[in-house]
Amino acid sequence: MKIAIAQLNPTIGDIFSNSNLILEAAKKATVEGVNLLLTPELSLIGYPPRDLLINPSFIVAVGAQLQQLAQDLPPELAVVVGTVVPNADGVKLGGKSLFNSAVLLQNGAVQQVFHKRLLPTYDVFDEDRYFEPGENSNYFNVGELKIGVTICEDLWNNEEFWGKRSYAGDPISDLAKLGVDLVVNLSASPYSAGKREVRSAMLQHSVIRSGIPIVYANQVGGNDDIIFDGSSFAVNRKGDLIQVLAAFETDFAVLEYDENKQDLIGSGNRQDARSTTETDLSCEPPFGDAEIWEALVLGVRDYVRKCGFSKVVLGLSGGIDSALVAAIASCAIGPENVLGVLMPSPYSSDHSVNDALELARNLGIAIELLPIGDLMKTYDRTLADLFANTTFGIAEENIQSRIRGNLLMAISNKFGHLLLSTGNKSEMSVGYCTLYGDMNGGLAVISDVPKTRVYSLCRWLNAGGYVGAVPSSPGSEIIPANIISKAPSAELKPGQIDQDSLPAYDVLDDILQRLIEHHESVPEIVAAGHDEVVVKRVVKLVRQSEFKRRQAAPGLKISDRAFGTGWRMPIAKSSSY
Amino acid sequence: MKIAIAQLNPTIGDIFSNSNLILEAAKKATVEGVNLLLTPELSLIGYPPRDLLINPSFIVAVGAQLQQLAQDLPPELAVVVGTVVPNADGVKLGGKSLFNSAVLLQNGAVQQVFHKRLLPTYDVFDEDRYFEPGENSNYFNVGELKIGVTICEDLWNNEEFWGKRSYAGDPISDLAKLGVDLVVNLSASPYSAGKREVRSAMLQHSVIRSGIPIVYANQVGGNDDIIFDGSSFAVNRKGDLIQVLAAFETDFAVLEYDENKQDLIGSGNRQDARSTTETDLSCEPPFGDAEIWEALVLGVRDYVRKCGFSKVVLGLSGGIDSALVAAIASCAIGPENVLGVLMPSPYSSDHSVNDALELARNLGIAIELLPIGDLMKTYDRTLADLFANTTFGIAEENIQSRIRGNLLMAISNKFGHLLLSTGNKSEMSVGYCTLYGDMNGGLAVISDVPKTRVYSLCRWLNAGGYVGAVPSSPGSEIIPANIISKAPSAELKPGQIDQDSLPAYDVLDDILQRLIEHHESVPEIVAAGHDEVVVKRVVKLVRQSEFKRRQAAPGLKISDRAFGTGWRMPIAKSSSY
Repeated sequence: MKIAIAQLNPTIGDIFSNSNLILEAAKKATVEGVNLLLTPELSLIGYPPRDLLINPSFIVAVGAQLQQLAQDLPPELAVVVGTVVPNADGVKLGGKSLFNSAVLLQNGAVQQVFHKRLLPTYDVFDEDRYFEPGENSNYFNVGELKIGVTICEDLWNNEEFWGKRSYAGDPISDLAKLGVDLVVNLSASPYSAGKREVRSAMLQHSVIRSGIPIVYANQVGGNDDIIFDGSSFAVNRKGDLIQVLAAFETDFAVLEYDENKQDLIGSGNRQDARSTTETDLSCEPPFGDAEIWEALVLGVRDYVRKCGFSKVVLGLSGGIDSALVAAIASCAIGPENVLGVLMPSPYSSDHSVNDALELARNLGIAIELLPIGDLMKTYDRTLADLFANTTFGIAEENIQSRIRGNLLMAISNKFGHLLLSTGNKSEMSVGYCTLYGDMNGGLAVISDVPKTRVYSLCRWLNAGGYVGAVPSSPGSEIIPANIISKAPSAELKPGQIDQDSLPAYDVLDDILQRLIEHHESVPEIVAAGHDEVVVKRVVKLVRQSEFKRRQAAPGLKISDRAFGTGWRMPIAKSSSY
Repeated sequence: MKIAIAQLNPTIGDIFSNSNLILEAAKKATVEGVNLLLTPELSLIGYPPRDLLINPSFIVAVGAQLQQLAQDLPPELAVVVGTVVPNADGVKLGGKSLFNSAVLLQNGAVQQVFHKRLLPTYDVFDEDRYFEPGENSNYFNVGELKIGVTICEDLWNNEEFWGKRSYAGDPISDLAKLGVDLVVNLSASPYSAGKREVRSAMLQHSVIRSGIPIVYANQVGGNDDIIFDGSSFAVNRKGDLIQVLAAFETDFAVLEYDENKQDLIGSGNRQDARSTTETDLSCEPPFGDAEIWEALVLGVRDYVRKCGFSKVVLGLSGGIDSALVAAIASCAIGPENVLGVLMPSPYSSDHSVNDALELARNLGIAIELLPIGDLMKTYDRTLADLFANTTFGIAEENIQSRIRGNLLMAISNKFGHLLLSTGNKSEMSVGYCTLYGDMNGGLAVISDVPKTRVYSLCRWLNAGGYVGAVPSSPGSEIIPANIISKAPSAELKPGQIDQDSLPAYDVLDDILQRLIEHHESVPEIVAAGHDEVVVKRVVKLVRQSEFKRRQAAPGLKISDRAFGTGWRMPIAKSSSY
């Protein structure tokens, strides 16, 4: 039997276009003699649809579109589509009004429906807000074959692998009891650094435990802050990863289930298995900097496209953050669609402008030069009486940042370019950024990237890590060396450098990772070798900056704990926690 | 037996101060010979603590503080405190790591623990994110009396009252089976207009059905966007509301349970029952404008206080929105702590400045005048080459708004005043507001108040609705008549009025309410008598403005569906939904 995985990139709520993606995959599957086509979780709707699910007319439209899709699909092909299904008993028995479901379409109609049982409600996930959990697991038949159906989280309750049980139910063991031959999983599993390896390691572990092979179909694409890496795969009965689909791009792959061997067949070699991907480039399994780079490029490309923009604008300070964002944007949508704006002040060093100009040349992006000295003077004059007898400080520094933010938004409004903001995670954590100033933008490209990672990404880029990322030749310098080597500075007062206010970034980033991602306490962080005074200052800064983060642009998530939809902290609260 | 309700205003996470509030109430209770003291849901922590609950060291501190509190309380008094309790079996059986619990403290120790069973996970609520539901309901004894314990949502699954079942379980009927004499409820039930009446009507209905009297202890105070109105109450066996505590302020009341009559005793008269409240003013049950006014005043007062500010600043345009916000702020923290900033442009009419000055005089607030004409010219010069051959439009209009936003933030940064933003819900809905301009601020005071309600609040205020709200004498004009009567205008270009771009506000607000609060479809709204072209335009504007709302300041919630923590809409999505 032939099984195809359609690793799709749906747009949230665009059920007509998403149907067409499924139809195209079905045509391809038919040509290749496929019996069963798998699509990702909520493939008809796109994941996560969030409060679109509260709109009753949307739910009605989804139901109608599913029926239409069933009729439009090639009749013989069995297709598993992800969608929501109303919970008919909800009003009578109590419970949420929808299920997160996989539906089997064949012969022009819905043949069977399977409900997701384990509903993630943590981090960026809110599934208990919308969905009633399914009560039990089930399978469908293709010929003699029993194919058990699971949806994303259903496969994540592997007690042995995690060392803890996350849910009472365990769909995979229930399916094993039903004697299924194969488990399929429809997923929308977000990217975070290293997650792909964890995902396949966990499911290989599950397969070895259960003896049932798994085919895992993941969504790909960026949806607001969340990036889905795709990287769908198949694991045979022995636990070998026999097929891995492309990371960070749409893909389509056909697998063979051998009824005699009662197993998926394939090489067991990951590299070979990826022969279905389109270019040589993406055949290298990305890791570390390469992986994060690809994630950010996809996140920018999809946000720009799905929001209906074609061009972006950003401020180029001559610093490393805006340099990295400009490079990512150039790779994502082409340098011809990127406008960099230089807005030097009297406090800007000469090298800032020169470095920014060199960067723009290297990338091949357009630039505009808008000095802000006159505006600064006019603000000073306007506020002269009110600010008389006060000393230059944060207020004056922020005025500069907000002048730049105003100019960038004026350009965005005038020409319809999406403004990208360029703050990194280290800054966002401690509030070393200006609300309504450099935080302005529709997308915060690197707000989940710590400063130390910003450096390593730029070094990797210059080392030719991603051939073809930008128009320069392999191995040539993309980020000007001086941008990487100089001391980072906001240049909001004469001679200022970041380390006037902050610990060294390697120290800061380690403290922040322990605090934010690992939930370590102050004593724990100090025990790891950090200075107590420094740790306490950093913790205080993080807590005090909540009001800024609340008003930040959506930021592309690449860590297990990003600020954004998965970070829900009160503002008016005790300063002790 | 005497039962006291301590209607407390905790600060999120400030477990030491919150303990002291409970201790003070306990002292008062002891003086009055009380046997049982009730406090609100999560009274030790404050509701909603959100992701503070993910911090392991916070959970440890909460546990220690609870033990300390148990020892510090008068030993004979039974006190029910709301807190979180670790789910010891979570790791083994699967499930969330915490319970939302009520603990009975007496004789220096925790005597009994009761877990919340029905966990709201909708709108602003995320309880499934943190909590494992309790499995069953239970009671404790005071003498011979069996007192059943419920927490907030546990009492909201009244199938008959709502016409639908929301949860499978029904704690009140389980407690009835256990033969309890009385049900107590610890609540943190947020305010929305009209909610107080719904709450008591529902519980009166429940009491009549079950025959068991209820004592309902609600939290009071503002926590970020959510306002808790207090309004705790008691319902006797017949369903009479025998006691209602103050709305929008802390309160303390003692009730009598008569063991012979097997009922709470009291007058059954709501007005008389409120004799424990402190001032005559709050004895008038607020409704409509009065109720919303009090909610907003409390929301501002608590946000300012709990964030550690003492003064606020806001822009005074001469329009009605900023006039209302200035009045609310004056009432909340005193006019001496409010600074109004007038920032006229060449497009501002004379009456704008005069109206704003008159308002400031009426309220007794300080003002600053900062004309922005020079700044506008300097931006024009700075952008002249780039914007050559383009026509004046949104970009230029927004520059003005962002100049004002920059000046206001400069004042906020310089003097440590909290900036209040003044946009109303109608504007926020359709995006008739400038991101990083007039949307700037730490708190969006009226972002859940439709424009038509802004007018009615101002008229009510001028009619002397709230005596003592502001320093003028009763019935005198607070909002200058011209501010109410003139056509609303953003004054960002010559002769501009809001209705150049938007339908009349009564039409707009009705469409918005149907769309946003009632989830009506376009055909349904048209069927209600609205023009289809207008409806479609409004719907489109609402959908296109999501990116602005995502970056808005927290806004005080007064409706059943506010933008903010309970509104979770994707940005990059189909334009059809």
